[in-house]
Amino acid sequence: MTGGDFGLLSPVSASTAVTALTGDRAVIAAILDVEAAWAAVLEEAGLVPAGSAAVVAEAADPGSYDVASLAERAQGGGNPVIPLLGDLRARVRELDTAGLGAASAVHTSLTSQDVLDSALMLLASRTVSALLVDVKGTTTALATLVEQHADTLCVGRSLTQHALPYTFGLRAGQWFQGVAAASRRLESVEIPIQFGGAGGTLASANKLTAGSASTPFALADALAAQLDLAPAAAPWHTNRLAVTSLGDGLAALIDSFGKIAADLLFLSRPEVAELGEPLAAGRGVSSAMPQKQNPVLSVLIRSAALQAPGLASQLHLAAATFNDERPDGAWHSEWPALRQLLALAAGAAGHLRELTEGLRVFPDAMRRNLDISGPLLLSEGLVAAVAPLLGEDGKQKLQVVVDETLTAPAPEQADTYRKLLREAVPSDKLSDAELEALLDPASYLGEAQEISRRILAAYPEFTSTKGTTRG
Amino acid sequence: MTGGDFGLLSPVSASTAVTALTGDRAVIAAILDVEAAWAAVLEEAGLVPAGSAAVVAEAADPGSYDVASLAERAQGGGNPVIPLLGDLRARVRELDTAGLGAASAVHTSLTSQDVLDSALMLLASRTVSALLVDVKGTTTALATLVEQHADTLCVGRSLTQHALPYTFGLRAGQWFQGVAAASRRLESVEIPIQFGGAGGTLASANKLTAGSASTPFALADALAAQLDLAPAAAPWHTNRLAVTSLGDGLAALIDSFGKIAADLLFLSRPEVAELGEPLAAGRGVSSAMPQKQNPVLSVLIRSAALQAPGLASQLHLAAATFNDERPDGAWHSEWPALRQLLALAAGAAGHLRELTEGLRVFPDAMRRNLDISGPLLLSEGLVAAVAPLLGEDGKQKLQVVVDETLTAPAPEQADTYRKLLREAVPSDKLSDAELEALLDPASYLGEAQEISRRILAAYPEFTSTKGTTRG
Amino acid sequence: MTGGDFGLLSPVSASTAVTALTGDRAVIAAILDVEAAWAAVLEEAGLVPAGSAAVVAEAADPGSYDVASLAERAQGGGNPVIPLLGDLRARVRELDTAGLGAASAVHTSLTSQDVLDSALMLLASRTVSALLVDVKGTTTALATLVEQHADTLCVGRSLTQHALPYTFGLRAGQWFQGVAAASRRLESVEIPIQFGGAGGTLASANKLTAGSASTPFALADALAAQLDLAPAAAPWHTNRLAVTSLGDGLAALIDSFGKIAADLLFLSRPEVAELGEPLAAGRGVSSAMPQKQNPVLSVLIRSAALQAPGLASQLHLAAATFNDERPDGAWHSEWPALRQLLALAAGAAGHLRELTEGLRVFPDAMRRNLDISGPLLLSEGLVAAVAPLLGEDGKQKLQVVVDETLTAPAPEQADTYRKLLREAVPSDKLSDAELEALLDPASYLGEAQEISRRILAAYPEFTSTKGTTRG
Amino acid sequence: MTGGDFGLLSPVSASTAVTALTGDRAVIAAILDVEAAWAAVLEEAGLVPAGSAAVVAEAADPGSYDVASLAERAQGGGNPVIPLLGDLRARVRELDTAGLGAASAVHTSLTSQDVLDSALMLLASRTVSALLVDVKGTTTALATLVEQHADTLCVGRSLTQHALPYTFGLRAGQWFQGVAAASRRLESVEIPIQFGGAGGTLASANKLTAGSASTPFALADALAAQLDLAPAAAPWHTNRLAVTSLGDGLAALIDSFGKIAADLLFLSRPEVAELGEPLAAGRGVSSAMPQKQNPVLSVLIRSAALQAPGLASQLHLAAATFNDERPDGAWHSEWPALRQLLALAAGAAGHLRELTEGLRVFPDAMRRNLDISGPLLLSEGLVAAVAPLLGEDGKQKLQVVVDETLTAPAPEQADTYRKLLREAVPSDKLSDAELEALLDPASYLGEAQEISRRILAAYPEFTSTKGTTRG
Repeated sequence: MTGGDFGLLSPVSASTAVTALTGDRAVIAAILDVEAAWAAVLEEAGLVPAGSAAVVAEAADPGSYDVASLAERAQGGGNPVIPLLGDLRARVRELDTAGLGAASAVHTSLTSQDVLDSALMLLASRTVSALLVDVKGTTTALATLVEQHADTLCVGRSLTQHALPYTFGLRAGQWFQGVAAASRRLESVEIPIQFGGAGGTLASANKLTAGSASTPFALADALAAQLDLAPAAAPWHTNRLAVTSLGDGLAALIDSFGKIAADLLFLSRPEVAELGEPLAAGRGVSSAMPQKQNPVLSVLIRSAALQAPGLASQLHLAAATFNDERPDGAWHSEWPALRQLLALAAGAAGHLRELTEGLRVFPDAMRRNLDISGPLLLSEGLVAAVAPLLGEDGKQKLQVVVDETLTAPAPEQADTYRKLLREAVPSDKLSDAELEALLDPASYLGEAQEISRRILAAYPEFTSTKGTTRG
Repeated sequence: MTGGDFGLLSPVSASTAVTALTGDRAVIAAILDVEAAWAAVLEEAGLVPAGSAAVVAEAADPGSYDVASLAERAQGGGNPVIPLLGDLRARVRELDTAGLGAASAVHTSLTSQDVLDSALMLLASRTVSALLVDVKGTTTALATLVEQHADTLCVGRSLTQHALPYTFGLRAGQWFQGVAAASRRLESVEIPIQFGGAGGTLASANKLTAGSASTPFALADALAAQLDLAPAAAPWHTNRLAVTSLGDGLAALIDSFGKIAADLLFLSRPEVAELGEPLAAGRGVSSAMPQKQNPVLSVLIRSAALQAPGLASQLHLAAATFNDERPDGAWHSEWPALRQLLALAAGAAGHLRELTEGLRVFPDAMRRNLDISGPLLLSEGLVAAVAPLLGEDGKQKLQVVVDETLTAPAPEQADTYRKLLREAVPSDKLSDAELEALLDPASYLGEAQEISRRILAAYPEFTSTKGTTRG
Repeated sequence: MTGGDFGLLSPVSASTAVTALTGDRAVIAAILDVEAAWAAVLEEAGLVPAGSAAVVAEAADPGSYDVASLAERAQGGGNPVIPLLGDLRARVRELDTAGLGAASAVHTSLTSQDVLDSALMLLASRTVSALLVDVKGTTTALATLVEQHADTLCVGRSLTQHALPYTFGLRAGQWFQGVAAASRRLESVEIPIQFGGAGGTLASANKLTAGSASTPFALADALAAQLDLAPAAAPWHTNRLAVTSLGDGLAALIDSFGKIAADLLFLSRPEVAELGEPLAAGRGVSSAMPQKQNPVLSVLIRSAALQAPGLASQLHLAAATFNDERPDGAWHSEWPALRQLLALAAGAAGHLRELTEGLRVFPDAMRRNLDISGPLLLSEGLVAAVAPLLGEDGKQKLQVVVDETLTAPAPEQADTYRKLLREAVPSDKLSDAELEALLDPASYLGEAQEISRRILAAYPEFTSTKGTTRG
Repeated sequence: MTGGDFGLLSPVSASTAVTALTGDRAVIAAILDVEAAWAAVLEEAGLVPAGSAAVVAEAADPGSYDVASLAERAQGGGNPVIPLLGDLRARVRELDTAGLGAASAVHTSLTSQDVLDSALMLLASRTVSALLVDVKGTTTALATLVEQHADTLCVGRSLTQHALPYTFGLRAGQWFQGVAAASRRLESVEIPIQFGGAGGTLASANKLTAGSASTPFALADALAAQLDLAPAAAPWHTNRLAVTSLGDGLAALIDSFGKIAADLLFLSRPEVAELGEPLAAGRGVSSAMPQKQNPVLSVLIRSAALQAPGLASQLHLAAATFNDERPDGAWHSEWPALRQLLALAAGAAGHLRELTEGLRVFPDAMRRNLDISGPLLLSEGLVAAVAPLLGEDGKQKLQVVVDETLTAPAPEQADTYRKLLREAVPSDKLSDAELEALLDPASYLGEAQEISRRILAAYPEFTSTKGTTRG
């Protein structure tokens, strides 16, 4: 009977896939990977006994370590690297049957912040790569919707009210733009290694490399290459832009998910019924109501979107109070926030992919809702076209028509509007046919198609299905 | 090899004690406790077969359930109650060897929000009770410091600079006041059950009790009594004041811890050295520097204090966007925030108790630091006493003395100040002895003792050691 | 051409009424009121020349001070009290034509934190009193809706989907409960004066009162009485529970407004049309679309609800990092957050009152939307009533009926459900009339009326119209 | 007697320079600039009467508009553009004495979101340009400190305790790196115009340009060129990455300021005294204590740093809940947050420049503080050098020496450490001179100089004084 948390209270990210990327065991694995890579770097530079790196690599099997015990012992020094190093060194000595002195390759010239910062960057890099696969599944699905629904009429809404005729293709296009732009930004975030030594002066590494062909900076670059992370021109112990940029990028991506979820949650309501989540057995059930089919994917995505802003803010707060050469609490407050952002992004990305790939679209309902507002929806365009025909105060006259129309009961407004317009505009200036053309929503879609085309063209790497097979 | 999280990245709360109070297993246990209590209530009211409650109670052993599997399955319906109910009912049927039909006592007339809200309130109530034991350990320790150091001179600081003479007793008194006032507020927060049924109308319970001697409201009160939670006049499905009040109360308590940690982190710096954390083997060590003795308790407490405001804010955001009769994401965003606040408060309370109970106090260093500013620190009082002796512009004359003193090198300022004062104030108006008396910091402590006394007197329940034995 | 901000980017609070309560001039007025009250207290205690208080009171006319200049000069010392004191003393000397020495009654034994903390508490107290008048207008209007619509059927929604039959009266009742409970909590927050002197030891006041009949504590209590603020047992310079409690209370109130706005914004959409904001000339217009009638009151209230959680969190962050006897930035970060919370609450309270007092309710649309789900909405109750008639696996059989119904096109689901039910349940066990009764939403409202009654009864002070006339 | 706010409660940004950039009048000016630029674009494309643009430009003088009245009227439609358009059109008609019909060039085919989004981007662009001038003043000053203090010994601190020898040059270098990296990121943020028309389809512009040589996209690009903002491939009405990127960039810059302020606030304390803020008349005074010299620049900067994370988070929250084609509150919640971030950044940048350009540096105090820890500070390097001389368990033996040293009273630890080391290490393995060399802090500075050099080299555009003259 263990005490671990498995995401019971965070269903959006409670999957084995997300846990494998961001769970405590993944943290341990990343720390061990950093130490093993470092041993390899030192051996390559001739600074530790030949053969050491292989022993360290063997010892760095995360399965050999007791996560619960490490977490408990992490309280002593305030970070998990310290107890893990003890266990790792013991394991290396055990495996170093040849007596190489392999333990000397463990952590030499590093400080725990080097290891934990680098390990969390490694964890982040891996998680971002994995979640971008799901993101591209989403954008590919959205791009298909853009094309399929280029002519599907619906209503555009602002401040909750009907604004203008719209197409579902353009709505999907704007969703695509949101996700693609945020993803491109996230992909561009540099995820660097950390290497500064105890106080950030590389003093120990300087002594270690003295007399060798290497330098601390060369070791740092080799470590970056080993871990496939970005190199760093200098230690960034106390300047947390790398961390906040990652957090900002993750939050911005989740924002783009949240915008889609907000729309879907409205559009799949029974009163609206323009869209539906994919149906799946056991999905969306209720403990009390047999008929419920809850849009649970959207709900979970939205729950992530409500949490991400605060987590990104936590990282900025840490950066803004990062005192001394290592701070007195701010650094510790980064860890859970960064990890939680990664888990939310990865979990939500998977749900959104499932949602967009199986989205049910109901064009008839879109048309039905569009028709609620009827010809009134064309008022902007109609005024622009007709006002000049009515002289100086044409605009005012037509506003009077609109205002009078709005006093009629809703079901009669379409007819009232037509009738009042006809009275206001002499038919020698505007024929019945011309008037009807102005009241046709399909005639007032503006550049919906061209905007969609431009959006897709701006993000070509997000419209192809390459690289979207889930791991 | 499990994927659970054990707090590796949150050392402030990564203890078995905190996990036992707030971990996923504690959540499962609380959900099961709610269902078992409900079965007892129903049986008591004669609404389910006699004997059912005992079967449900037996089935409600949290050890029988697989947390990881429940978490993964919680994604389907978006909350953990749904899969747990399936498992619980199966277990009840298994144990119902007498064929009582005990399964009918499970969840009847409840909805998952009733259960999860009540369970989280139960978890909160238990955690708050437990952490207040540690808090009273802390306040008792602080009260002792107030008395021991009523005459221990130190310097009061504002905007980082020396302000006035102070006593360490009053500083401890203000720490005490912060913790005691916040604890009293937290203790006063009502922690209610939730009971509204599927839509919040108690429709199912209304049918269930029809024809019986009971009512839905009577059942609700009985449930509250069973769980030792506050009763609720009406369902509060969509009004989250109970949740935000709890969050606010926890945050305010952690604020009071954070204030102490901020002071300790400064006062235990080598340059200041007025206080020291208790020494303990393995505490405060570094992975690189053999001599380091980090104030790790304070660091961890501060890391919690930097996180709590954002978590409390998350609960308000949920409350402010809690749409419909159950919302589309806001509810889900409450759960991790509330649990994390509880864990941080419980973890930090334990660390603060250890810290205050073993705090090392160095009065000599306090005096040494006080003497850095020397007589200048008495300027406020001196001006008040002496300016009237110097005529209309006495205040201005004395400000000139201060300003001129401040241009001298720091080590010479004490002597300079005395000399310039002596020149400015005729000795027939103020004798040397009178001047020296005015420059004695012990003469300018104001009501330090009386303020301390009033503070302790205002919170008598926090000065005694009763009820502070750790569980 | 001035540089002042008038709320151009915060329309929710950009009214003259709100500005009068919370604007910079109101801050100046509050600071001056504190100094004038203090002069009165000192004179009453015989500590300053008789007649001084009247001179200070005359000088304390906020209209005589240049806000813009004070704001600019506040940068020098980091707070607005310092330059204002200079101006106030000059003005007192000017008015002290009798040469009383009235200037000695200004700020004597106070520190700027005493004055600014007390002034902001005074501002808060006044603003809370004023906004509660509007809040009671709102609750009174809601209480009326509860009674008028006790039988108005509508649908209850959870996770965006139809859940159960509901009444609009109960919905209004839950809104009432939210606002009333939060208001009661806000009303109960103690808003105290601050008095500690420069370092929090009352040293200067101790010297001042030496030999008099008074004490610093008596002066403090007299100041509280003068300003109609709560007394304080001790200085709370560094323990900010008074500030965070106020912030939490304001945020909780705005949360309750936000919940209502979230519902209204959905319920007044054209596709739903159950409610409408009051119509008013110029309200809700668009710069481009002549037909738009935006629910702008709800939009503005929601914009406040999205901001309040972060502002309350800012106050906790300040409290949690309030180092020393006066901190090095945290205190300064409180001021704009507290003021902004007050302004948002006051602005939103006014809008909500207008909204609820003029709310347009459309019971026909409520019924139409209820009928979208038709008999399926009664599934919970039907299963409870009918399953026992069908043997051991009655529940499963009925779930099959529901599931099969859900595969039919939406418009046919009502008929399909009836037909399948009729097939599944022998008519000798359940007559057609009995079945129809089970499918009548009015038969499944549970305790909607009783819950509403209990809610109103729990907050009697919020159902009367007394004291709701706007200033 | 106006009701405007002048920053009384936000001294960090209460300067005329900041107000000129971000105040309400600057918002009005930016809105008018957008409308005037649009008129020019339309005239250039031959879509409005020749001469119109000049009339609009003349009418677009911000001094002619009443900010307070506009703010009050903005409540009606929920945004400031709507009332301003009314006033602008009236003014254009007044000035259009030639009867050109210039009013037709105002706002044609735009929607209020186009104008307000573009205006706030314009305001942001101008403010960022202005504040970067101050930032480069700061980085230039820091670069000078890096060079001047390349050899100035001080102590590096982690978790508040002494860690290793350090140089003040490297500390200044890390401050430089923080500011330069954040500034470069902020400079790289694209600040685009917004143009989508009422629903985001460009429908009105499509009609307007029909039959002309222009297109809506060409007009958009021309508008961007007129305003010196980035063009946008498509409308971004509902995808707020441009806004959150700006917010993130500003927050990251303020983070870098906050880190410096946190260090300065500690380093300028009387007990530490390594640094001092520049002295200036009236700066840092107290209302009560004549001797106080508060580091008010740092305090104000820190107050901004504590606020920025929450404001950036507010922008993400808006983005994550940006429903429909224009949302129901989220958009409105962006405005005050974005403006406040700009004002804090601009205000803090000015203060930081003053602070760094006049920073007082006290190398003697740095040395004195370094010597508190004495030879113990060299333990890491000493262990690395000496342990191999002591056999297998050399490290353990030396840890025992350190631990025993730490039990001695602080003032005796230096001597104790030397003595115990001498006993532990045979002098034939390590001579006295060799031991002393190992205990010399200057011998263990690692790559401090090279790291500093690399940092400056990485940001050449931030080391020169070009373009740093204040406006």
